[in-house]
Amino acid sequence: MNRKAIVYILGWVLNIEGAFMILPFLASLIYREAHGWAFLIVAAICFAVGVLLSLKKPKNMVIYEKEGFVIVAFSWILFSLFGCLPFMINGDIPNFTDALFETVSGFTTTGASILTDVEALSHASLLWRSIANWIGGMGVLVFLLAVTPLKGGGSQIHIMRAESPGPVVDRLVPKIRNTASILYVMYIVLTIVEFMFLVVEMPAFDAICASLSTAGTGGFGIKNNSFMGYSPYCQWVVAIFMMLFGINFGAYFLLTLRRFKQAFKYEEARCYIFIIAIACAIITVGLLPRGMGLEPTIRHAFFQVSSIITTTGFATADFNMWPQAAKVILVLLMFIGACAGSTGGGIKVSRIMILAKTVKKEIMIYIHPNSVKKIKMEGKMVNHETLRATNVFFITYVAIFIVSVFLLSFESHTLETSFTAVVATLNNIGPGLSEVGPVGNYSGFTPLSKYVMMFDMLAGRLELYPILMIFHFGMWKSAVIPPIKRRLLLKKR
Amino acid sequence: MNRKAIVYILGWVLNIEGAFMILPFLASLIYREAHGWAFLIVAAICFAVGVLLSLKKPKNMVIYEKEGFVIVAFSWILFSLFGCLPFMINGDIPNFTDALFETVSGFTTTGASILTDVEALSHASLLWRSIANWIGGMGVLVFLLAVTPLKGGGSQIHIMRAESPGPVVDRLVPKIRNTASILYVMYIVLTIVEFMFLVVEMPAFDAICASLSTAGTGGFGIKNNSFMGYSPYCQWVVAIFMMLFGINFGAYFLLTLRRFKQAFKYEEARCYIFIIAIACAIITVGLLPRGMGLEPTIRHAFFQVSSIITTTGFATADFNMWPQAAKVILVLLMFIGACAGSTGGGIKVSRIMILAKTVKKEIMIYIHPNSVKKIKMEGKMVNHETLRATNVFFITYVAIFIVSVFLLSFESHTLETSFTAVVATLNNIGPGLSEVGPVGNYSGFTPLSKYVMMFDMLAGRLELYPILMIFHFGMWKSAVIPPIKRRLLLKKR
Repeated sequence: MNRKAIVYILGWVLNIEGAFMILPFLASLIYREAHGWAFLIVAAICFAVGVLLSLKKPKNMVIYEKEGFVIVAFSWILFSLFGCLPFMINGDIPNFTDALFETVSGFTTTGASILTDVEALSHASLLWRSIANWIGGMGVLVFLLAVTPLKGGGSQIHIMRAESPGPVVDRLVPKIRNTASILYVMYIVLTIVEFMFLVVEMPAFDAICASLSTAGTGGFGIKNNSFMGYSPYCQWVVAIFMMLFGINFGAYFLLTLRRFKQAFKYEEARCYIFIIAIACAIITVGLLPRGMGLEPTIRHAFFQVSSIITTTGFATADFNMWPQAAKVILVLLMFIGACAGSTGGGIKVSRIMILAKTVKKEIMIYIHPNSVKKIKMEGKMVNHETLRATNVFFITYVAIFIVSVFLLSFESHTLETSFTAVVATLNNIGPGLSEVGPVGNYSGFTPLSKYVMMFDMLAGRLELYPILMIFHFGMWKSAVIPPIKRRLLLKKR
Repeated sequence: MNRKAIVYILGWVLNIEGAFMILPFLASLIYREAHGWAFLIVAAICFAVGVLLSLKKPKNMVIYEKEGFVIVAFSWILFSLFGCLPFMINGDIPNFTDALFETVSGFTTTGASILTDVEALSHASLLWRSIANWIGGMGVLVFLLAVTPLKGGGSQIHIMRAESPGPVVDRLVPKIRNTASILYVMYIVLTIVEFMFLVVEMPAFDAICASLSTAGTGGFGIKNNSFMGYSPYCQWVVAIFMMLFGINFGAYFLLTLRRFKQAFKYEEARCYIFIIAIACAIITVGLLPRGMGLEPTIRHAFFQVSSIITTTGFATADFNMWPQAAKVILVLLMFIGACAGSTGGGIKVSRIMILAKTVKKEIMIYIHPNSVKKIKMEGKMVNHETLRATNVFFITYVAIFIVSVFLLSFESHTLETSFTAVVATLNNIGPGLSEVGPVGNYSGFTPLSKYVMMFDMLAGRLELYPILMIFHFGMWKSAVIPPIKRRLLLKKR
């Protein structure tokens, strides 16, 4: 285990966090709020610790898969721990567990809140919540890879892979650093475009926060009723942008290269849009008898579907009051999630596709035992390793899910509440149903349950393994298998 | 596709069904009920059709995996269709959908009932429900293999494999026919032993029905309050026998061979008993504050745990009123199920163990990329084929589960009802929670939902694939790949 490299990178993560904390401080100067000073103080602490850790760049920056996981897991935990301090210092969320929950929820782009009155927060704190959504969406380490020249050749891929969602990681260009830069440039451009659309009918501050939270598919709103109070125009804009941020960024990269044909051929994106269309259609039909009129019905159906499948979590309607079938569709969408390589969470459309193709293949094998069938995605054969990892991911996912529901069930909530609270946190969505529905919040849980859900949010955002691994004792026992033992093992094969 | 062999075997399945129908008729003679004649009439129909189909034994009795699945799927559907006729003819359950639901529920050892008043049924119908549980537990085709000399050498294994639960099929002895006979002899002996224990404190008829339903882990009771009204002694006996019928019959076979050491080494059975012990302990602690006294608390906890993990479904307490945590434990047990090679349903302990070991292995690979770790069960290495099949089984299982909950959700039941109704039918348990809890029943669903649940019960009992495959068009298109095409495919490899 290359501990020096890990510490060095963690130092840089804190430096970046400090830099981002300047923004809420500036916002507080504009709005003349005293709350902003907390951000300046914590930014200073971040820099102090960060510079200390990253003072001396280690000579050996070579890291392996294992270190990649450790770096990612610790970066996110550290980022959340420092990120919750301003809330506590400025008194917006004085309780540590609650402040940490809110911060983890922000960074993991979940958007689940323990606040009963969001509007009582200072502008600085509101902005910080949205910034957390934004940086968490694309990933703090991807940002680090984009802005700092980390040496180590092939090492960076292990960090990128551990932080990026989806079964495989696309390298847009051969160099990881350039890939990371391109991703962030596209991300920033899309965020700005959304802001420009929104600012037409929205106050500037609202538009900034909404754009940041949409981009990260986070879903932290600055109003108690989420998006219910904004104009239909704003709701349409946000609904469309949520959907766009749920598409693999590789597709946008192809668009910038003017390879339109290739961009529109993305199998996963097509399936994703198909699912959205079907879900909207069914929900619209189910809601029509309520007599809201055609446009509002379609708008609400589309907004909620787009919000849930991308795991954003904004709401323009209290879907907890919708027909049972519509609710079940939304819960299914929560599991499916967005495309791999987007900022959305969930199991991911491509994994669902691989799983479905695996089942289809299994049935085919029974019918035609001699046939040779390979599973393909995006025209390429899916290798055995990815298939196995996808299966195991799914099993681990279900296991974490079950254990979490079990732990939450010790509180006297309804099964619907416990169940959808886990769905909504593990998939980084935000609102669930019943008590944690779009007009509810997570303040009713005990601290123990809140920590379980924080674990779920982190595990969901980092796709299970990095967070699971730091709980594994074997991880810390032996750094590398000694060369002699390894040779023996290789002989055995 | 060897259609002649399939038809021949289906004919024999009907002959067996006809033979079993004589028993309720005899019961009705004892109790002087007119209801019994319906069974004699349908028995005659079964024989008429059965003898017609099995009149001429085809020369070619060689069947492959595919035929095995088709035979098993159609046997069970045919068996259920003919089995529901007496209920309709004698007027005990006049509605076709309800009668079929009750029969499918019986044969698949689910025990979910649409009856609001079981005690109103005739003795003949009550006995037929319990017989359905019993024959469905070990399997009608296993019975067929045990009693009729089917030729075809290695063909029988394909039938046995398609009907028997669990990831792999133990051959107790080299010949399948002998394996089937041994299984049924042990099954009959255990059932009789239970009857002898029960008849001490129970009317003979009650003891017969209870023994048959326990043995098949079916759970059809003959009282409206299931086992709540019987003496503590009877409850203990049934609880212990349910647990015993959930253990791999291979273990009992080893006991009869006096290979005690080997029998007690069964990894799956040890894990199964460990789970029961833990679940009982937690539920007992949770129920103690209710002040029922220590013995009744332990008894109710053990009875319910044993009933649910073996997917029997008897109840001595309305566990729907238990603390939330106890309910969640029971729902988890519903998924786990009993041991492979027993009469119990669910995912099976061995599959859960294989899945858990797979996840553990995956984590180990990340930590020690060079280590070579194989997954072992019962001291033997689990081959790649079994691993893959287990993963795919699990994925298919979850997919069927989700689609079923979705289809049921169009009715206005609570999520808890729809969710646990699917859990209870797909795992062949019987009672769920809320409306379908131990004191509720399945009469409140629409016919559509009832057919969905019948599908789930059959899919659950036959472990998904046989039932899924008959819905696959490719299955029926081409019988066998033409030799030329096959040679080409082989070359490609």
